[in-house]
Amino acid sequence: MRVGVLTGGGDCPGLNAVIRAIVRKGTEKLGWEVLGFRDGWQGPLTGRSIPLGLTDVDHILSRGGTILGSSRTNPYKQDGGAGAIKNVLAEQGVEALIAIGGEDTLGVARQLSEEGIRVVGVPKTIDNDLAATDYTFGFDTAVHIATESIDRLRTTAESHHRALVVEVMGRHAGWIALHSGLAGGANVILVPERPFAVDKVVEWVQSRFERMYAPIIVVAEGAVPEDGEQALHSGETDAFGHVRLGGVGTWLADVLGERTGKESRAVVLGHTQRGGTPTAYDRVLATRFGLHAVDAVAEGDFGTMVALRGTEIRRAGLDEATAELKTVPPDRYAEAEVFFG
Amino acid sequence: MRVGVLTGGGDCPGLNAVIRAIVRKGTEKLGWEVLGFRDGWQGPLTGRSIPLGLTDVDHILSRGGTILGSSRTNPYKQDGGAGAIKNVLAEQGVEALIAIGGEDTLGVARQLSEEGIRVVGVPKTIDNDLAATDYTFGFDTAVHIATESIDRLRTTAESHHRALVVEVMGRHAGWIALHSGLAGGANVILVPERPFAVDKVVEWVQSRFERMYAPIIVVAEGAVPEDGEQALHSGETDAFGHVRLGGVGTWLADVLGERTGKESRAVVLGHTQRGGTPTAYDRVLATRFGLHAVDAVAEGDFGTMVALRGTEIRRAGLDEATAELKTVPPDRYAEAEVFFG
Amino acid sequence: MRVGVLTGGGDCPGLNAVIRAIVRKGTEKLGWEVLGFRDGWQGPLTGRSIPLGLTDVDHILSRGGTILGSSRTNPYKQDGGAGAIKNVLAEQGVEALIAIGGEDTLGVARQLSEEGIRVVGVPKTIDNDLAATDYTFGFDTAVHIATESIDRLRTTAESHHRALVVEVMGRHAGWIALHSGLAGGANVILVPERPFAVDKVVEWVQSRFERMYAPIIVVAEGAVPEDGEQALHSGETDAFGHVRLGGVGTWLADVLGERTGKESRAVVLGHTQRGGTPTAYDRVLATRFGLHAVDAVAEGDFGTMVALRGTEIRRAGLDEATAELKTVPPDRYAEAEVFFG
Amino acid sequence: MRVGVLTGGGDCPGLNAVIRAIVRKGTEKLGWEVLGFRDGWQGPLTGRSIPLGLTDVDHILSRGGTILGSSRTNPYKQDGGAGAIKNVLAEQGVEALIAIGGEDTLGVARQLSEEGIRVVGVPKTIDNDLAATDYTFGFDTAVHIATESIDRLRTTAESHHRALVVEVMGRHAGWIALHSGLAGGANVILVPERPFAVDKVVEWVQSRFERMYAPIIVVAEGAVPEDGEQALHSGETDAFGHVRLGGVGTWLADVLGERTGKESRAVVLGHTQRGGTPTAYDRVLATRFGLHAVDAVAEGDFGTMVALRGTEIRRAGLDEATAELKTVPPDRYAEAEVFFG
Repeated sequence: MRVGVLTGGGDCPGLNAVIRAIVRKGTEKLGWEVLGFRDGWQGPLTGRSIPLGLTDVDHILSRGGTILGSSRTNPYKQDGGAGAIKNVLAEQGVEALIAIGGEDTLGVARQLSEEGIRVVGVPKTIDNDLAATDYTFGFDTAVHIATESIDRLRTTAESHHRALVVEVMGRHAGWIALHSGLAGGANVILVPERPFAVDKVVEWVQSRFERMYAPIIVVAEGAVPEDGEQALHSGETDAFGHVRLGGVGTWLADVLGERTGKESRAVVLGHTQRGGTPTAYDRVLATRFGLHAVDAVAEGDFGTMVALRGTEIRRAGLDEATAELKTVPPDRYAEAEVFFG
Repeated sequence: MRVGVLTGGGDCPGLNAVIRAIVRKGTEKLGWEVLGFRDGWQGPLTGRSIPLGLTDVDHILSRGGTILGSSRTNPYKQDGGAGAIKNVLAEQGVEALIAIGGEDTLGVARQLSEEGIRVVGVPKTIDNDLAATDYTFGFDTAVHIATESIDRLRTTAESHHRALVVEVMGRHAGWIALHSGLAGGANVILVPERPFAVDKVVEWVQSRFERMYAPIIVVAEGAVPEDGEQALHSGETDAFGHVRLGGVGTWLADVLGERTGKESRAVVLGHTQRGGTPTAYDRVLATRFGLHAVDAVAEGDFGTMVALRGTEIRRAGLDEATAELKTVPPDRYAEAEVFFG
Repeated sequence: MRVGVLTGGGDCPGLNAVIRAIVRKGTEKLGWEVLGFRDGWQGPLTGRSIPLGLTDVDHILSRGGTILGSSRTNPYKQDGGAGAIKNVLAEQGVEALIAIGGEDTLGVARQLSEEGIRVVGVPKTIDNDLAATDYTFGFDTAVHIATESIDRLRTTAESHHRALVVEVMGRHAGWIALHSGLAGGANVILVPERPFAVDKVVEWVQSRFERMYAPIIVVAEGAVPEDGEQALHSGETDAFGHVRLGGVGTWLADVLGERTGKESRAVVLGHTQRGGTPTAYDRVLATRFGLHAVDAVAEGDFGTMVALRGTEIRRAGLDEATAELKTVPPDRYAEAEVFFG
Repeated sequence: MRVGVLTGGGDCPGLNAVIRAIVRKGTEKLGWEVLGFRDGWQGPLTGRSIPLGLTDVDHILSRGGTILGSSRTNPYKQDGGAGAIKNVLAEQGVEALIAIGGEDTLGVARQLSEEGIRVVGVPKTIDNDLAATDYTFGFDTAVHIATESIDRLRTTAESHHRALVVEVMGRHAGWIALHSGLAGGANVILVPERPFAVDKVVEWVQSRFERMYAPIIVVAEGAVPEDGEQALHSGETDAFGHVRLGGVGTWLADVLGERTGKESRAVVLGHTQRGGTPTAYDRVLATRFGLHAVDAVAEGDFGTMVALRGTEIRRAGLDEATAELKTVPPDRYAEAEVFFG
């Protein structure tokens, strides 16, 4: 049996651990040939693939990124994309495909599955916003890195009596902000799910300064002020007559500086959050996802994806992956609010 | 309302995060006085306690260990222990008690609860072997540290064509060995739940050497060979006429050296696994446990403990904490076996 | 004998290690009273000080920042500043002062010394640009953090075939860029000492892409293009009609994207480089600086500062600290150029 | 020109960084062919070698160990060893050899050089005990790892009021113990250079307990008690009638437990100290050593080794490498003694 594998969308620590588990179990235990497609859906579109054997997956368990490369190519956004993929799979004798990716990648997998291609999905999103699974690999690593940065910034904040705004990833869901903010002891956490009142943030920051603390504000890149996001676009002139530089973190640091009279600085963590060696948690989760995806293929349970429920790996329909965005619910945000101000 | 808190048993990264969450929510949001008892059950036995306010829990979120100290004192193992505790609580005006600890500490809590003392438990075991909860804080940190060590040892093993045996914690349950072995890419993982055949281990190690890998064997301290553990006691003379030095890891490295003719070394990770700053995962879990323990007290739901189920914090009876040891089930061990040899 | 200590300028990992060493040796071995002045020169100006005993310096060896606070206050920039300091020192019975800081702080120390105040300096600059000493503490930590970030970013760059520009600290000297670039395997390193030709950087980046590498460009915040820095000011409109957002790193990523047609991103490490626990190297150096500063005071060798020469701690005149900026020399930059392109 | 390279002796973080620098500069800048010999002197003895090109040294800068393998083979300990090496070098057309290793490896290099083989040395010792150079790569990484472990153990010691003995590497020189002990805030540091009085250690430990500290004792594996080392041999029966298990650390923990009545534990860090990714410091030093070794070969300056003096890379005679062991001098130990007790 020949099985293909690809990784799509933004890179994420743990992708290589999934690939390794698929190759180890597929080739050593089940006698498969495993073929790696390059650069997401571009691989099965254009036929660019490489055979994956044991030596190819040596030493990659602890490496971030993906040895297969990735892309955001969507075969349904080009004419005949799905047909081209069918042809390539037939030509290369690929009987089943394991697609590792987020909402977009799995959405394509679902469509291809409906057209008869035998696909199993492995969910991947650093933002942890897929409803079908408790957690996705990469998220723990991102939270770990963000927390380490907050730990580092705290001493600077305290030595200089400064407010520090840390902007973390999370365009639509605030999970990284919530977890790293809790873990880093942030004094305010702002998430996309809950538009924030600038006045309230100013008040929390001031109360923190009065108690001799230097406040740390963790803000998801997608968080917006209650009174609209128009002022946030980089390069535009704001109500104060300033040209806005950068995202919500930089903007908020400026506003806090102006409103509190205290020095305020922003740090935008950016891509460092999604790179480097995965945490042990993510390596275990990614490895288990890979092993169970192999099982699903071996059992012919196509059109499904693997998912974590509690401590168990289960299967869910590929449609569940894309059905709903998993956002931070009010009770989880309320837990964090205990530490605000 | 005055609420006491204590930490019992072996120390564990995240204990301070629980204490901080209790103090922050208890004092700031609910107006409680929080009293910290020193050194586990010794505190309520002898009356040694300190008031815990906001400044006492500053900067402790990221610190390992416990600011309250710990001990293995069991009040039921001394005459009048339970009575002494009742008296101390009455004298100091403590209306409810939050006990953070493992099987022993929570066992005492359960007994005291049955005698009418108002107690809420927070489960703690670095070994992750409490059945009532999916995970306990400290476990992720221990796995993280063990994995980091395995990562380090791999390069030495490969440069010198050596077998390296890494002994990790786990007297009765092999969770740390299983997770760190999976995350570190171990070639053999040995756990207490499954007595191991030395011949089989030798075979795996040899096959690994033949394929030009240097094998890493992760062994839980409580793992035993199938043919009995008599040879393992440190200081005794074994079948080879050697005095045995150290635990199963050191013993196994000796045996592998003799049987394979390859250089074999043991590293015993020991206490480094339970110290130092908790991972972000453990800080979040410990913080949530602390917040929810406060809720249980506030709601008068005594005789319970907090527990993680999936992503939710639930309550369980204190009796559940001590009912059953959660060991590595066969299907989880089978996942790891894919990578053996 | 009563001895004062203060920390001035930007915070730096290792400041607390210096303070601890001064207190431990001063009080335990020499019987001194040690007084900590708050917030740099503001302390001796306003009289804000606290006694420092053994328990005050517990647990601070591994903590970043400074327990004394810091500021950029310069007593010579306000009328009667030096006189106010003399009065405060006399009033509080402080017979000697240890000033820990960079060019500005030590410049003030030198002036006060010339006016008869008994001062010993400890050099501090995260940028490593003081000519009087081989290395300053904090630098190794900054390089360590920047290197860790570059390691993380490499996997993202490779997975997405992107160019990544990492902007590190270094306004006037490129030491952090040079060392972290070498340690992180950067393909281009740009420093303030050597204005760069954009064409040449584009060429290096393209050649790297052709050889299937994803390039990492490390740029010091003070690096400037050969053809002038006018385009770099944030908020201004550049030659391409864009409003410039951010510093040289962001600008360069934009230019590389436009010129190479490849996705290019910038990450600005910012304050994370100067926070958090110091590396072992910096803790040892800072501790030795503190011990030797105590010796200089004990021997009455005022007007001096401690300095590292090879593996030895020596003394230098306070005037040497401010005499000359230590920049990256051509032969050190040439070492790095081996790896360019 | 064809140049050989080999790595001998115990592995050490940074070896791969040296190899990479040699290959990058040798092939890209000077047009050399570089040949890697396998497993130390075994390679040139038996002819086992592999060509090293750019892709072979990709991604190895941050990897511990050595891609060439290592051994302790000494060609002068077998008949005709030197002759065999000459023949192999001639057969394979190797005109010069770069030998990376410690006292033994460089001793062989010196002898071969005296016999006319064109050799340049790169010093390597994790123990930092080569007199010819200020520092060797690998040492900073070992100190970093040991310090991290001490940081972790401190919280356990304090939570349980225990004495913890940490045994680190250093058979003949106490540099790792000295630096990690200083960096980790150890209360006692014991080194091979200074036999220790057990009574004095007991006294320090007791005084520390009285002041409410939990003491950490860092001991080099080669440290010995003043009253002789006979009791230390593992497996023998000591004065207390116990069979001794393990080295000086384990022994000392037993003695401290018996003498102070406090719980005392030993942790033996072992091989974890020499594995894993090198620190940024070691990557820079190793890279510079590699570049300068290439220069020495290019300039025909054979019989020499590269060495660090202050911030400069210099050359020393290969005889200097083996002339003298660099041990911890009394004044450096006296610095540490400030913190004892």
